[in-house]
Formats: sequence, C-alpha cells, structure tokens
Amino acid sequence: MRILLIGATGTLGQAVAAELGLRHEVINTGKTSGDLQVDMTCQGSVHRLFESLGSFDAIVCTAGKVAFSPLAEMSIEQFRSGLDDKLMGQVNLAMIGKKYLNDGGSITLTSGILADDPVRGGASATTVSAAVEGFVRAAAIEMPRGIRINAVNPSVLQESMRGYAAFFPGFEPVPAARAALAYRRSVEGAQTGQVYKVR
Amino acid sequence: MRILLIGATGTLGQAVAAELGLRHEVINTGKTSGDLQVDMTCQGSVHRLFESLGSFDAIVCTAGKVAFSPLAEMSIEQFRSGLDDKLMGQVNLAMIGKKYLNDGGSITLTSGILADDPVRGGASATTVSAAVEGFVRAAAIEMPRGIRINAVNPSVLQESMRGYAAFFPGFEPVPAARAALAYRRSVEGAQTGQVYKVR
Repeated sequence: MRILLIGATGTLGQAVAAELGLRHEVINTGKTSGDLQVDMTCQGSVHRLFESLGSFDAIVCTAGKVAFSPLAEMSIEQFRSGLDDKLMGQVNLAMIGKKYLNDGGSITLTSGILADDPVRGGASATTVSAAVEGFVRAAAIEMPRGIRINAVNPSVLQESMRGYAAFFPGFEPVPAARAALAYRRSVEGAQTGQVYKVR
Repeated sequence: MRILLIGATGTLGQAVAAELGLRHEVINTGKTSGDLQVDMTCQGSVHRLFESLGSFDAIVCTAGKVAFSPLAEMSIEQFRSGLDDKLMGQVNLAMIGKKYLNDGGSITLTSGILADDPVRGGASATTVSAAVEGFVRAAAIEMPRGIRINAVNPSVLQESMRGYAAFFPGFEPVPAARAALAYRRSVEGAQTGQVYKVR
C-alpha cells in the first residue's frame, strides 16, 4: 500500500513509520520536514498536499497539539487551541482526504488515554481526544467507496515520559513500537469506526 | 437554590424550567428572550451575564446548535459551527461561570444520544456531544470550592420528533419531562463528572 503518514517526525510517528515501512510505501509528512509538508490546520494546505500526492491507500495521522495547564489557569484560547490543531487538523485530513483516497482505503487518527482517564491540566486534551473518537464513530457510517476510519488511543508513551511524567502519576507507559502495532491493525485490518486502545 | 438556566425557551429548556421551578428560583436565560439574555459563544457576553446575576448556586445549559448534513455534503465550516456553538458555548459558561458560582455549586451541560449512537448526517453532533462529555469528565477533577459538573445525554425528544424523526429511525424518543429529571438529579445530587443518559 501507499500510505500518507502525517506527524512522521514525532515520537509516535517515527515508530509508526518503522512499523508500516516494513510492508508498505510510507510518505513521511510533517509541518516543516519529511518527504512532503502540510499544515493540517489549513484547509488549503491539506488540499495542496492531496493534489500533489497521486494515488494512495491510507492516511495515518499521529500529529496534533493540545495545551496542558491547570484548569484554574487555562484560558479559553488555550483550551481552544487543541480543538483548532489536534481535532480540526485531523478532521481536515479526513474530510478532504476521503475525496482523494483509493476505493477501500483507510484513515487512522490519533486520540489518547486522556479521553478515558482525565488528569490535572488535561481538560483540553480529554475534550479533544473524546471529540476525535466521536468523529471517527460517526464518520465511519457515512464514508464512501468502502473507505474505513478508525482511531488509535495510546497511553502515555515510554519515550515521552521525560516531559510528561508529572502529568501521568501511576500511569503505565507503553513503548511507541507497541502503539505502532495498533496503526497497522487499523490500516491492514477490515474494521471501521473503532478506537484501538493501547495500554 | 438560585439556578441560571440557559436555553430556557427551547423544548428541553421549558421542561427543565418547569421541573426545577417546583423547588428553586430559576432565572430563565435565552439568546433573545427570557429574564436575562446571553450569547454564550461570546466570552464578553458570558462575563456580563455573570456580573449582572448576583449570587447563584447552579448553571444549567440546555442550549447549543449543531448542523445536520450528510457527510458527503457537509462543509468543514458547517462541521465546525457545532464546535463554536454547542461545545464552546457550554465551555464558556463553565470556564467563566465557575469563578462566579457559590461554593458547592453545580454546572450541568447537555450532550445527546448521538455521542454514543451516530446517525447519518450527525457527524458534527456526535463529535460535539462526545467532546462535551469529555470536557465534563476532565473539568470535574479540577473544579474549585466543591463545584460539581455533569452532563445530561438525552435521547431524541418526543416533542422534537416532528422535525428530527427522519434522522432517528427506530430511536425511542423520550418526553422532555423525563429528560428534565436528569437535570434535577445533577443539580440536587452530589455526584460530579457524570453523564446522565436518558433513554
């Protein structure tokens, strides 16, 4: 398969690129690096990406930012930035990308453990991850031409614990390579509307 | 208790006003009608509402719009309008209102059955309702001064079936008066971070 991977240079993206790269052609895409560039928060940039891509079979997104801050200090603008980036960025990729994807192709988005298990400072992250999963459940039943859409919901990554450990007391981290398997499951499997949790 | 009810003139809001009004002082608030007016999508308007309100014990919101459209025809702007209105409107009320609420007060927001059970045309509604529930779960663990926050997730209302029946084939509608009980449960109960489903 020919797979577009957005967020390829991130911790999770590198592991997904390694896993999918064993069997597929992976087009590593980032905001400023990679084979191709895209600002997924910008509809025009997303359109240009797909126009330049040629035929492809899967979209995988491991990109998306949210702000972490205690609720008492979180501005509504900070809260909203996660909706603009991690939610609407992925929605843009799916809504625009479905028109370009090959028949029977797939879209795999990323949510996260905070969708289920909130932590201090994570109100925006929980909201965004829950929203991504809602979008996937709903979009799955209306996708055209056999296109599937799933989400991967990983726990905090072992490789990211240095920066995030303070937010996740007692959480059991997972290696990025284990999380990457869930993306393979989504891309190579036949299910749709699923949320693959990696714990 | 003194309860601020936003969306008081809607189908659900009227039933909630009737239920809560049996035991409490309810301040009916709407966009253009009611005792007080607010545009909940505008932070300034929300601040002015709370400044003018005096002491109060609960915020209940039954307001919020989302666009319904087949996914193939839904523009990203239509999709996004539900985030701006039903999600961020309720987030504005909660984030700003928590500073004004009495100690031990409560916030009750509204999601909907589509969070769990998507239908054709409802991709934005599912995303928004899932996001509202995520926000409630996460904000609950960081609320100050014993303030609680819950969501009510009603099925389609019997009173709304005339306009919405085509979107909800085989769904069992619930009377607005039954849904209103869940708001009472949230306001008068002691739980927080809950989603009360009315089926």
